[in-house]
Amino acid sequence: MGLKSWLPVAASSPFSLANIPFGIISSPGSPVRRPATVLGTHVLDLKVFAERAGFAGLDEIQPHLDVFSATTLNAFAVLGRPIHSKVRAYLQDVLAENTAHPSILRDNDSLRAEAVLPAEAVTMHLPMEIGDYTDFFAGIHHAATVGSLFRGPQNALQPNYKHLPVGYHGRASSVVVSGTPVRRPWGQILLDPAAEHNLPTFAPCRRLDFELELGSFICGANPLGQPVPVDEAEQSIFGYVLMNDWSARDLQTWEYVPLGPFNAKNFATTISPWVVLPDALEPFAVAGIENDVTPLPYLRESRERNQYDIRLRVDLHTAGRAAGSGPTTTTITETSGKNLIWSFPQMVAHHTVAGCPMRPGDLLGSGTISGTDDWSRGSLLEQNGGGKRKIKLAGGEERVFLCDGDTIIISGVCGTEEDGLVGFGECSGQIVEAVKMPC
Amino acid sequence: MGLKSWLPVAASSPFSLANIPFGIISSPGSPVRRPATVLGTHVLDLKVFAERAGFAGLDEIQPHLDVFSATTLNAFAVLGRPIHSKVRAYLQDVLAENTAHPSILRDNDSLRAEAVLPAEAVTMHLPMEIGDYTDFFAGIHHAATVGSLFRGPQNALQPNYKHLPVGYHGRASSVVVSGTPVRRPWGQILLDPAAEHNLPTFAPCRRLDFELELGSFICGANPLGQPVPVDEAEQSIFGYVLMNDWSARDLQTWEYVPLGPFNAKNFATTISPWVVLPDALEPFAVAGIENDVTPLPYLRESRERNQYDIRLRVDLHTAGRAAGSGPTTTTITETSGKNLIWSFPQMVAHHTVAGCPMRPGDLLGSGTISGTDDWSRGSLLEQNGGGKRKIKLAGGEERVFLCDGDTIIISGVCGTEEDGLVGFGECSGQIVEAVKMPC
Repeated sequence: MGLKSWLPVAASSPFSLANIPFGIISSPGSPVRRPATVLGTHVLDLKVFAERAGFAGLDEIQPHLDVFSATTLNAFAVLGRPIHSKVRAYLQDVLAENTAHPSILRDNDSLRAEAVLPAEAVTMHLPMEIGDYTDFFAGIHHAATVGSLFRGPQNALQPNYKHLPVGYHGRASSVVVSGTPVRRPWGQILLDPAAEHNLPTFAPCRRLDFELELGSFICGANPLGQPVPVDEAEQSIFGYVLMNDWSARDLQTWEYVPLGPFNAKNFATTISPWVVLPDALEPFAVAGIENDVTPLPYLRESRERNQYDIRLRVDLHTAGRAAGSGPTTTTITETSGKNLIWSFPQMVAHHTVAGCPMRPGDLLGSGTISGTDDWSRGSLLEQNGGGKRKIKLAGGEERVFLCDGDTIIISGVCGTEEDGLVGFGECSGQIVEAVKMPC
Repeated sequence: MGLKSWLPVAASSPFSLANIPFGIISSPGSPVRRPATVLGTHVLDLKVFAERAGFAGLDEIQPHLDVFSATTLNAFAVLGRPIHSKVRAYLQDVLAENTAHPSILRDNDSLRAEAVLPAEAVTMHLPMEIGDYTDFFAGIHHAATVGSLFRGPQNALQPNYKHLPVGYHGRASSVVVSGTPVRRPWGQILLDPAAEHNLPTFAPCRRLDFELELGSFICGANPLGQPVPVDEAEQSIFGYVLMNDWSARDLQTWEYVPLGPFNAKNFATTISPWVVLPDALEPFAVAGIENDVTPLPYLRESRERNQYDIRLRVDLHTAGRAAGSGPTTTTITETSGKNLIWSFPQMVAHHTVAGCPMRPGDLLGSGTISGTDDWSRGSLLEQNGGGKRKIKLAGGEERVFLCDGDTIIISGVCGTEEDGLVGFGECSGQIVEAVKMPC
């Protein structure tokens, strides 16, 4: 039986007392961005809480209370994991029914009135100021399926794939928080790649796709030229979010050689707003996909359970554009966060091994997470076999790729209702029509 | 005959009165980072200058004087090109022999003593806080030569090359200012790619290279989903720097498929410290390399002279490691900045066409600039034919790739000594030995 709070928390909430994630809120009465945590359907405004002596029972945070007045979580992240753990544990206690500090909040009517807000009344913002964003490719089932579509089954996985966490630098400026509309991108498209002397067309993307990923925010910093050893890399990880790495497949096919994806990815990447700490996910650590190649020593982790068994789900919500049909919602993907061949600490170790500096607020993406079953594929490209099959939705609708008005909603949760769910809430984005262009 | 200053300026200085670039300095007496300009061997501290009413003769800057108290040039860049032009022209006047404002500085002993410093007494810093860094590939002679080495002459230029400015997202956190030592990176290397079942080795890079590039800092901002038209893109460009995109060729060959270069590039990128404004380079605008493919309308510029004829030079300075030989310096490359097939405004138009937001402080690299002659190649890889030839240096030394202790010094200059040179100063970095690793 999980810890019980004096606040009402539905058993089905991903934000049980076992979670205590961190995010950035604003509210109509207080438009300044500020840190908060969430429990059930309430958020705790940590700026007000800190200013009104809410942290009086936690000595270690006293020299650092100004981090709760910041407009991002970067300053809090910089404090490091031992402090994050203490803050989370303290908030769990303060919010628990049998709290050791009842006078702090439970029995403090005036602070409760000021600091505890209905979650529906606040606006969520990007939790971190993101310096650099790197997207990896650690979902081997995705890499194999998509590699086969792009380069044929003989070259599905490149020779390096099992030796190193393949990744590329993404675009930090287009990372947006859940709920931000995603505009259909324009770009160059080769309509018939088989035709000789074929010229690219300039048009709105016709093969707009999502990619189901986990994201990880960095809290550690290494100087230029100084690698982070793999067994220390976990201390560099502040927490996790869900991520949708929106992809324009037709732009990607034409542009990606030889330097990798560019405009096919940099028009938007959506993340969920609450950063879930490693401490909260630790009970759900499991072994990931076994690598049948022994990695080089700098990538060998002592830790065996280096992935998280997060139940990931993708829902496609239509705007009801088919004649006569209203909006419908269809679950199109169910898989687990454990379907990765490389762990985030391995990604950090590889990313820094040549000397690249990490900074607090940097974001790493896992790569698309897919299982091996038809219903566990983390992108439409995999589900439609490279654009060849229609995917059936509720209400008789069908999709090959995303239509204007469609909303992709990613959710992810660990654990049981009995012990208290640990989840991320939603990572959602609706496709809006392409801009008008004179062309 | 160029404008003459009341400060002594050698005819050979790249920082004539025709230039007036902007940078960020600190000094032993005043360690706070602050904006400055440079003329000959003197810098003008713009923080002191602004605080002591130096800008009294320029109404337009009065509401924005705080930009000169910032620790980067981002706030100044945000003001936009019309203001940059006015500030540059005003500083040219204030520093001119026959200034219209003699009392501001020329005849103001106390302000001169405080604000005019010997350039050798200040430390230069990164001029901008870089949000995102993107590296293009617009040097067609480089792309063809290196493409041929990596993929054979049949596939030297990919089919998309002449249709769009190919580029990839680079790593902002490892962009460093000239003078920062560059540590030899470790990484995975496939020693004999031809051998079957060959396994990668983990070792310090053996094929360490430089890449001669121009960099461009962005001052404009476009919202997510809103492209920048090509003929407006020039207004998004704050100014230019020299760039060395250090490259670990052995890491690159193994890692770059299918998502592009990663650790082979992200260990360091060096830029020159002074940002030269487009206004200063405008007299040297010329047509670039002709594209025999007509680009799509969104990439067609009205402007024909869309490149700059900057005389670029690369010197290799050795530490004198060969027995008996002292340090030597050899000019290994001479070429022109005009050797590009895509202009920076075309890069901005392409980068934003799918909706990617640009932010002030973003950095774009041109890609390696090479001519077609042997001595005009902007990387060692091109000069040594893929590692097959030795390059002869002064003093009897030879190089295939860079040795520890070697310094690469890039310089670039436009115009004549008579009219006043417009240049960048140096973009230099010395290779230091790899870190010790337990492996």
